[in-house]
Amino acid sequence: MPSQSQHSEFGLIARYFTPSPPEPDAGVALGVGDDCTLLDPAAGRQLAVSVDTSVAGVHYPAEAPAEAVGHRALAVSLSDLAAMGARARWCLMALTLEEADEAWLDGFSRGFRGLAEACGVALVGGDVTRGATSIGVTVMGEVAPEAALTRHGGRAGDLVAVTGALGGGAGGLALWQRGERDLARPLLERYLLPQPRLTAGQALVGLATAAIDISDGLLADLGHLLERSGVGAVLDPEALPLAEGLVEALGEEGARQAALTGGDDYELLLALPAGNLDEARARLAALGLPLTVIGRLEVEPGLRGVPAADRRGWQRFLTEGPGDEP
Amino acid sequence: MPSQSQHSEFGLIARYFTPSPPEPDAGVALGVGDDCTLLDPAAGRQLAVSVDTSVAGVHYPAEAPAEAVGHRALAVSLSDLAAMGARARWCLMALTLEEADEAWLDGFSRGFRGLAEACGVALVGGDVTRGATSIGVTVMGEVAPEAALTRHGGRAGDLVAVTGALGGGAGGLALWQRGERDLARPLLERYLLPQPRLTAGQALVGLATAAIDISDGLLADLGHLLERSGVGAVLDPEALPLAEGLVEALGEEGARQAALTGGDDYELLLALPAGNLDEARARLAALGLPLTVIGRLEVEPGLRGVPAADRRGWQRFLTEGPGDEP
Repeated sequence: MPSQSQHSEFGLIARYFTPSPPEPDAGVALGVGDDCTLLDPAAGRQLAVSVDTSVAGVHYPAEAPAEAVGHRALAVSLSDLAAMGARARWCLMALTLEEADEAWLDGFSRGFRGLAEACGVALVGGDVTRGATSIGVTVMGEVAPEAALTRHGGRAGDLVAVTGALGGGAGGLALWQRGERDLARPLLERYLLPQPRLTAGQALVGLATAAIDISDGLLADLGHLLERSGVGAVLDPEALPLAEGLVEALGEEGARQAALTGGDDYELLLALPAGNLDEARARLAALGLPLTVIGRLEVEPGLRGVPAADRRGWQRFLTEGPGDEP
Repeated sequence: MPSQSQHSEFGLIARYFTPSPPEPDAGVALGVGDDCTLLDPAAGRQLAVSVDTSVAGVHYPAEAPAEAVGHRALAVSLSDLAAMGARARWCLMALTLEEADEAWLDGFSRGFRGLAEACGVALVGGDVTRGATSIGVTVMGEVAPEAALTRHGGRAGDLVAVTGALGGGAGGLALWQRGERDLARPLLERYLLPQPRLTAGQALVGLATAAIDISDGLLADLGHLLERSGVGAVLDPEALPLAEGLVEALGEEGARQAALTGGDDYELLLALPAGNLDEARARLAALGLPLTVIGRLEVEPGLRGVPAADRRGWQRFLTEGPGDEP
């Protein structure tokens, strides 16, 4: 069988991904090594699940450091759990590689595992195959019934707010394309080593009425939230919190564009009743994360406050509809 | 961002995979369209999870009919749930495509959905990206605590048995490579449209002591079961149930080789106390599936009864260790 000719080579690399024996509180009843992994979900919780694929040369530069590729592939999936306010628990990885390069695998594994450990996520399954390099990561988390932060709960009058800073993804990509390779530069770090806002998402449960993570760009993702919530919004582009170094890298105009329409920021975009703002800010401040009000939801559909020239991401949302996820 | 340039094209194809509103009993609290899907697991059950990637030209012929590709990608993952005796409930699909070919997508979707509906599995999430064609399918099922059929429960004295017939995967591949394209031919159907043995796996809970699905070939998969169970086995190669048309296609010697070492059969290989045989046969007969005893587990490690010339799959197991799954 074609698939078997892969095994002798790829059996080698299994060790990079053979999980350590799971922690007692990891909820793993039967770990890797059988046909399936068996998990013990917490009683009375809902499961939040999502999958994202990262393709070399499409979602990240094919020459990106292996450690960043591993970190990033997991981070973009975890960001979806963060946006639901879910506690991240388990992940599965489908790794497709052109060749088994041990140095690359070592770095990839370090990046993936490092973030998994930092976020308390157990790697509970996977598949390693040969082909054009891509990484599919399925994440599973838990959330109390009725507690999840959805896209559809926003109401007219709610504030629109974002965690952290915007434009770092696009700014980092721009630096990368100019040949910058120092990941200690904040923008490059934001682009290649994004931090999923898991603790922030959980802290906002009960305060935010709606949330989405900013992966497609602020305007496009705001569009998804507005559509699902059946409302419109007015934004104040001057209020956007810009990522460190963004204006220096892209200029003022470029920085605003990056913050409005650049993707890969993986911050949370929220709808928040004004009365909850102080408490939300206090909880996020305890996590070292700022929360910035950038607008307000309104009854009238559509988007106001953003100059026509800056609405590229909004146009894209209108053209393409509610995203490409099945 | 690079990923966004894909959206306008790939947004088009989302409709092929936008699930119908979930059935009331599907355990879906919040369906597709948010950052995550929210599921309601049954109380007091364990979750069985697994992921498999199917790469065009590696795991299936790149020119295989789209409907078969969709069916098969889901089937190989569901087969892992079958081998645990789990009830299949949900799946997520990470689809990577070189181009959005509507006719291909229509067929692929039909094959995937047809099997999902037949097996009572809800498609609850996914991601569609551009790249070399591959399909990653994560499956989630449920099983009562302590009920799962693992690889490690086999005991010396247990019978070794298989469901259905063997060699169909290798036989079908051989026909395909000879240019046969009529999927009504039983061997080609076995190869391209395998049926995951979900109901059989559930029927065997409480009767079988161990189980694995035959994806790598009988000898290799038996090796995994023996290793995990800490036992050896004697096989009777004359007893192997051969797939319909296999001897005609490959000759007697080729047929035996295909049954022993061919992969992609997706039958269940079981360890079964002799006292449970009649009941197991009766339950599977009710599902229209034969159960054939092909050997017995023994205390002494290793494999006996298979002539040296026929042990290719066993050698591969010995060389490569317990598989390439993380």
